[in-house]
Amino acid sequence: MNLQDTICAIATAQGGAIGIIRISGPEAIALTDRIFIPYGPDKTPLAQRSPYTLTFGKICRETGEVVDEVLAGLFRAPHSYTGEDSVEISCHGSSYILQQVIQLLLHNGCRSAAPGEFTQRAFLNGKMDLSQAEAVADLIASSSAATHRLAMNQMRGGFSRQLGSLRDQLLHLTSLMELELDFSDHEELEFADRTELQQLVGQIERVISGLAGSFSVGNALKNGIPVAIIGATNAGKSTLLNALLQEDKAIVSDIHGTTRDVIEDTMNVDGITFRFIDTAGIRETTDEIEALGIQRSFKALDQAQIVILMYDLTQGWAAFRRFYEAVRHRLGGKQVILAMNKCDLVPDTCATLPSFIDTDDGEWHPLALSARQHLHIDRLQSELVRLAALPDIAAGDVIVTNLRHYEALTRALEAIRRVKDGLSLQLPGDLISQDLRECIFHLSDIVGEVTTDEVLGNIFKHFCIGK
Amino acid sequence: MNLQDTICAIATAQGGAIGIIRISGPEAIALTDRIFIPYGPDKTPLAQRSPYTLTFGKICRETGEVVDEVLAGLFRAPHSYTGEDSVEISCHGSSYILQQVIQLLLHNGCRSAAPGEFTQRAFLNGKMDLSQAEAVADLIASSSAATHRLAMNQMRGGFSRQLGSLRDQLLHLTSLMELELDFSDHEELEFADRTELQQLVGQIERVISGLAGSFSVGNALKNGIPVAIIGATNAGKSTLLNALLQEDKAIVSDIHGTTRDVIEDTMNVDGITFRFIDTAGIRETTDEIEALGIQRSFKALDQAQIVILMYDLTQGWAAFRRFYEAVRHRLGGKQVILAMNKCDLVPDTCATLPSFIDTDDGEWHPLALSARQHLHIDRLQSELVRLAALPDIAAGDVIVTNLRHYEALTRALEAIRRVKDGLSLQLPGDLISQDLRECIFHLSDIVGEVTTDEVLGNIFKHFCIGK
Repeated sequence: MNLQDTICAIATAQGGAIGIIRISGPEAIALTDRIFIPYGPDKTPLAQRSPYTLTFGKICRETGEVVDEVLAGLFRAPHSYTGEDSVEISCHGSSYILQQVIQLLLHNGCRSAAPGEFTQRAFLNGKMDLSQAEAVADLIASSSAATHRLAMNQMRGGFSRQLGSLRDQLLHLTSLMELELDFSDHEELEFADRTELQQLVGQIERVISGLAGSFSVGNALKNGIPVAIIGATNAGKSTLLNALLQEDKAIVSDIHGTTRDVIEDTMNVDGITFRFIDTAGIRETTDEIEALGIQRSFKALDQAQIVILMYDLTQGWAAFRRFYEAVRHRLGGKQVILAMNKCDLVPDTCATLPSFIDTDDGEWHPLALSARQHLHIDRLQSELVRLAALPDIAAGDVIVTNLRHYEALTRALEAIRRVKDGLSLQLPGDLISQDLRECIFHLSDIVGEVTTDEVLGNIFKHFCIGK
Repeated sequence: MNLQDTICAIATAQGGAIGIIRISGPEAIALTDRIFIPYGPDKTPLAQRSPYTLTFGKICRETGEVVDEVLAGLFRAPHSYTGEDSVEISCHGSSYILQQVIQLLLHNGCRSAAPGEFTQRAFLNGKMDLSQAEAVADLIASSSAATHRLAMNQMRGGFSRQLGSLRDQLLHLTSLMELELDFSDHEELEFADRTELQQLVGQIERVISGLAGSFSVGNALKNGIPVAIIGATNAGKSTLLNALLQEDKAIVSDIHGTTRDVIEDTMNVDGITFRFIDTAGIRETTDEIEALGIQRSFKALDQAQIVILMYDLTQGWAAFRRFYEAVRHRLGGKQVILAMNKCDLVPDTCATLPSFIDTDDGEWHPLALSARQHLHIDRLQSELVRLAALPDIAAGDVIVTNLRHYEALTRALEAIRRVKDGLSLQLPGDLISQDLRECIFHLSDIVGEVTTDEVLGNIFKHFCIGK
């Protein structure tokens, strides 16, 4: 990570009326002055102009040929996005022109910015912490009111403040514990009242646990609620998926430059994104070997929050129990929709469907539908929305949406629970203190205070270029 | 065309790190102040800030919720692109955020800008003439050094200056002619020396003729050189087209927001764009009725500058003459490449190919190739480049690239030729004067001085939104 060179990149997508080129680094202004000539009587170079100003002028080659007429926006360290001297050149949105300007900048000593390098510099220059920097990518990718609110709150430091407050409490705890250690010769001395300590640790545990727990909501909002459709190979799984996707064309688009896995088919219903996980057909079987073959489908199933259990009614309603027995051990804790397909073909069977069936996981209400005929697909969608039951997100809510943060919180939670147990078991203060320090370490990791270069590189390489 | 309302639009393409929203009109600054709050101690609203400044702040809903953290660039009439008060808001490049900001602006009294409306306002406010405004769209669409140079020169007024100089000369001529008319009672009076007049008219005619003539080059640069591949139905026309396009994947992309026809398959070779015109298969026939059926292909052929005449060698080289006779009357003035296809199948026939054949249009050199085997496609490409023979474009060259300008120049040329003839035939001054005025009218039409609202609407509706 070299902060000494000056970087440049096109910061806008191809095809608009305006294209922006960003330049940042110690030589940003001097390098721009080599190719930029202001219009009008005042030929003062950018280097002698005030920050936060716009100058109209032309970008010229060495030959004098005009490449474009542009506006140059000027920023001086530390009052810029990156915290460095910066220029933003607003060009006509021709990719030819933008490339030519970039070529001129490179020729004059700039370096092409790596993905996310502007934001990485903002982080390294202390303009934002790591969780705020990560929120910038989320903000750019935000596609709904909820994801926008979460990213905006995180970028503006809501999450960081909550973490900061936790760390202050933990540091206070640690200092109490360690003060005790320093005076450990005096056995009677106990600076920290153990009951009070336990209360404090309990409070911290609840906050961390709440934050870690919010990830299931945050992840569902950000990446969509994972839904698996499972069923025998000819139960009509693909037909149903197509019917669902066709009913609602508002498919979440490709999201560039953000840290997330490949998104499978997604669908928006009532502002909630559902993400369908691929599962292969599951056969009802007691054969051990065949059961191994469908383990992969079960593994996919494990990621699902909602399972659409699809059954082919032409196989007879009575036979359903056998199918259920084959999959029931995998459905624990998941919300299940019982979709009885091909209802149009067997009206008699449909008429005898019970209004609910008893299972280990409570009462399930069979939903008769026909994927091919698009019958009752709307009911299935309503049921998906009902089961999703996402909370409304208010402007200030802190909800964890980032897997890296969730993992750090989970480790912090394990550490704080060890502290709690240690206090109960009256373990020696130095052992407890070690767990406290580990808890602090993981929380610090989220805001980037103890993060290694490798992790940093990994985070920023998923940004888009120009950010 | 209402210049009294304030317009807004997203000016960048979807998907970048930065998105720009443009606002222009009498209320641009006041409207922005309603949703924009500066950061830092200085809360001065934009309305009281200096033009050409950037202010960092937040876009807020009425509820206080932050929609984005942005930079607001401020411009005051007449020193802006449109000549009106303007603001450019630089947001995070999320389409959700950009839409929300636009919604807020609309809610506060802005109107969504129509395509090209910012540039149209720049024209109506006298910031640029019509040919310069049209060049803005060309500049944004420019995809090669040559098209960029032509558009840049036109936008910077190179063409306008040349037209202005022509109009000055024509007005001088007209005033001389009309002065004579005022004194027409005095028959002996001839203020204007007819020989001198004829010289002047001849000069003007040459300039206009040169400009009109440059359109074939300009159009070829802008839209690609039209190439038709003609041949019998199974001569391998489509296979050759695919082979050509596959050989060079640098296909000119969709060009948004500019005034041009649907572009067929295009290909770039050595920086020259070739545009392939669809033609149906042509059969060799003497049957009158069947001949009528292929008129459509011939019509497409008429647009071509280069014709690839494709012949299936497996039909025998000797039979070629018959095919040639069927199409020759349509090839006058076009550059022809004789592509002898399927050479891999009939090596013996290939061996007996003459090095040239005599035609009405000179010597043609048969080029043996195999479209299916991709044999000698490179030779065909070299031949295309050789025949294209476009001149190098220097920075100051005026070359007409716009069909509307070409048509106006053609009419101006007709008028000036009538003037020339009128002078030769010693027609009365008032008749000559009328033609002079018509010539001036057509030249004025190019820069938009006499252009109707309908024509204006037609020009700007092909711009992209936000420009």
